[in-house]
Amino acid sequence: MAEVLKGNAVVGQSGGPTAVINQSLVGVIEEARKAQAIKKLLGARHGVRGMKDNEFLDLRKYKPDLLETLANTPAAALGSTRDKPDENYCKAIFDVFEKNNVRYFFYIGGNDSADTARIIRELADLVKYDLRVFHIPKTIDNDLRTTDHCPGYGSAARFVACALMGDDRDNASLPGVKIDVIMGRNAGWLTAATALARREQGDGPHLIYLPERPISQKQFCDDVRSVYDKLGRCVVAVSEGIVDEAGRAYAGKLVSGEKDAHGNIQLSGSGALGDYLAGLVRQMGVKRVRADTLGYLQRSFAGFASPVDATEARQCGRMAVRYAVSGQPSGSVAMKRKSGRAYGVSFFRAELKDVARLTKPMPADFIAANGHDVTEKFLRYVRPLAGELPEMGKLK
Amino acid sequence: MAEVLKGNAVVGQSGGPTAVINQSLVGVIEEARKAQAIKKLLGARHGVRGMKDNEFLDLRKYKPDLLETLANTPAAALGSTRDKPDENYCKAIFDVFEKNNVRYFFYIGGNDSADTARIIRELADLVKYDLRVFHIPKTIDNDLRTTDHCPGYGSAARFVACALMGDDRDNASLPGVKIDVIMGRNAGWLTAATALARREQGDGPHLIYLPERPISQKQFCDDVRSVYDKLGRCVVAVSEGIVDEAGRAYAGKLVSGEKDAHGNIQLSGSGALGDYLAGLVRQMGVKRVRADTLGYLQRSFAGFASPVDATEARQCGRMAVRYAVSGQPSGSVAMKRKSGRAYGVSFFRAELKDVARLTKPMPADFIAANGHDVTEKFLRYVRPLAGELPEMGKLK
Repeated sequence: MAEVLKGNAVVGQSGGPTAVINQSLVGVIEEARKAQAIKKLLGARHGVRGMKDNEFLDLRKYKPDLLETLANTPAAALGSTRDKPDENYCKAIFDVFEKNNVRYFFYIGGNDSADTARIIRELADLVKYDLRVFHIPKTIDNDLRTTDHCPGYGSAARFVACALMGDDRDNASLPGVKIDVIMGRNAGWLTAATALARREQGDGPHLIYLPERPISQKQFCDDVRSVYDKLGRCVVAVSEGIVDEAGRAYAGKLVSGEKDAHGNIQLSGSGALGDYLAGLVRQMGVKRVRADTLGYLQRSFAGFASPVDATEARQCGRMAVRYAVSGQPSGSVAMKRKSGRAYGVSFFRAELKDVARLTKPMPADFIAANGHDVTEKFLRYVRPLAGELPEMGKLK
Repeated sequence: MAEVLKGNAVVGQSGGPTAVINQSLVGVIEEARKAQAIKKLLGARHGVRGMKDNEFLDLRKYKPDLLETLANTPAAALGSTRDKPDENYCKAIFDVFEKNNVRYFFYIGGNDSADTARIIRELADLVKYDLRVFHIPKTIDNDLRTTDHCPGYGSAARFVACALMGDDRDNASLPGVKIDVIMGRNAGWLTAATALARREQGDGPHLIYLPERPISQKQFCDDVRSVYDKLGRCVVAVSEGIVDEAGRAYAGKLVSGEKDAHGNIQLSGSGALGDYLAGLVRQMGVKRVRADTLGYLQRSFAGFASPVDATEARQCGRMAVRYAVSGQPSGSVAMKRKSGRAYGVSFFRAELKDVARLTKPMPADFIAANGHDVTEKFLRYVRPLAGELPEMGKLK
């Protein structure tokens, strides 16, 4: 173990917020207060931008009950950023760190944030400046490597499960084809979680399309037709990142100005993919076709976080500080699922290089052979993350 | 009081479902079981269609714990319908009623359903067939006359409030302009309820556009510009039914094939209005512009009903049966708000003709003078209906 560093700490939040990213922030604040090695805890406004521009909040001044409310508030309380720092940007951050005697840097975010953390640590190494860097995972996309799952995913999974659960009942009330477009551009984890909405045979979503499995327009229409002919209705969950048989993203085609099946050019915009797919189904002669793009509610809806997700997100923040002040080398906090019937996780330190920039698509054994569903193994994986879901009653 | 009729009863659900329409159904079932005058309680599959086609479920056979789960399940458990019966359709229903010795008819729905109930009662009067008809109100649009508010509205209000609450924090994290399109084609009640998301000065939604107040494209852009210049961000809640200065619905123009500001023709579809308005804001030079159409989740999201709304919806179902079997003339169940500080309602029987077909726009004193906000009086009206909302924490 290296000697324990003494100095100030910086914490920041980055990328698309989640319902529990503030849990991780509060975890860092709570643990930093206890740590003798950490003097000031500086909260960077809008992630790397605040670090570069020396814009910090003093995080010692907030009272525990405010912090508890804050932890249960969706989105990034410090502000987030989409800036992707290059080398010069990172050098500017590093200069600010040196000036403020920052010896601990905690960054809550996805794989880009892990990469920023990695670069800044390398800069510190280069000039032999002692700096402990910890990445704290967060993403509703659940596509970070090494960790079993990502804080933020469980709450988003809970949201889409309840959305599809209600939507399926709505669709059974007024039958037709309903298409729900789910977030997750490169990986289908969140779209796959809609399968939690099912309770019994015949429940929707009846078709689940993931970016991991290309789908042609023809196959999509054939699949919908097949369910619709059988059940008289069809609920479809589709990832915003689905690609056609040539590997081209549907959404990308719509935004780039390509013409749709009607010869119309779609405006870019969040509803475009759903509307496009609904258009295809209408062309098949189905009368009642609706599309919803679940949008930002998936990551930000207030008062509906998964309790397990909230607890784990808090703990990830705490563990980052504990690892850092106990002299462990820089890294990323990760979770490992405990074996056995009861759900539980243990935490461990992963290497930044194993998380930075990389993504994790759904493994093949989580995706059904037909390409438009998930496996029971995936359901066992995701169920405890979303927490308890409401029961749906039916008249038979 | 007329003499107490003895015979069978029919209950049906109609129109766009809500999160609590099954509460009303269960209220009818529970109370009908107690009523000696009612022998069988027949549940019509898909509203008037099941009545016309003699498709009924026997509602005596379900156990109390299933009914309790059912009450908490969104959407219409019996199935709903968009059929608007004409005279012949009503005659066919009436024939089925006569054949089944139906003496009580309970119809859970909006103003169209009240009208159907009214026509069927008139048919019964014409041939001197004793039939007691009760309409049970439901609509997330909250636009029924006579009643203080409608079952279904409180839960939808709760949903949009929490959606905007989280979305506002998301927008503060990653500033830009966010447009949320809310259900309610003819009245702004639900869009107005997004104002519940605000806790303090500066919180969104910053602009609220209702169908009751025409808005020109220029005024819309000026309003957004003004907020954006002041706060560096702007959250807009807009009803799907907004109209321009000439009284034309924006959504209608998009669907009808009119060209948008870019010269493109929009496909009809649920995301079109939000994408169109986002396009206008992008043209103003704002970089980060997003639009979400909250869609069917507003009425169907599982596990998130307003407790007050759920209780009142159940009670409306019960009261319909009590009125009917106690010999009161046909009518519609309505709620009156009790005076005094603590929220409460009493129930009364309204005339079908005062509810059928009519709609209720927001009154002038619920809409702010600037045309893009609500008044404190409206907030006092809506707050108890949505129930307790989560607290949002901020770092200042």
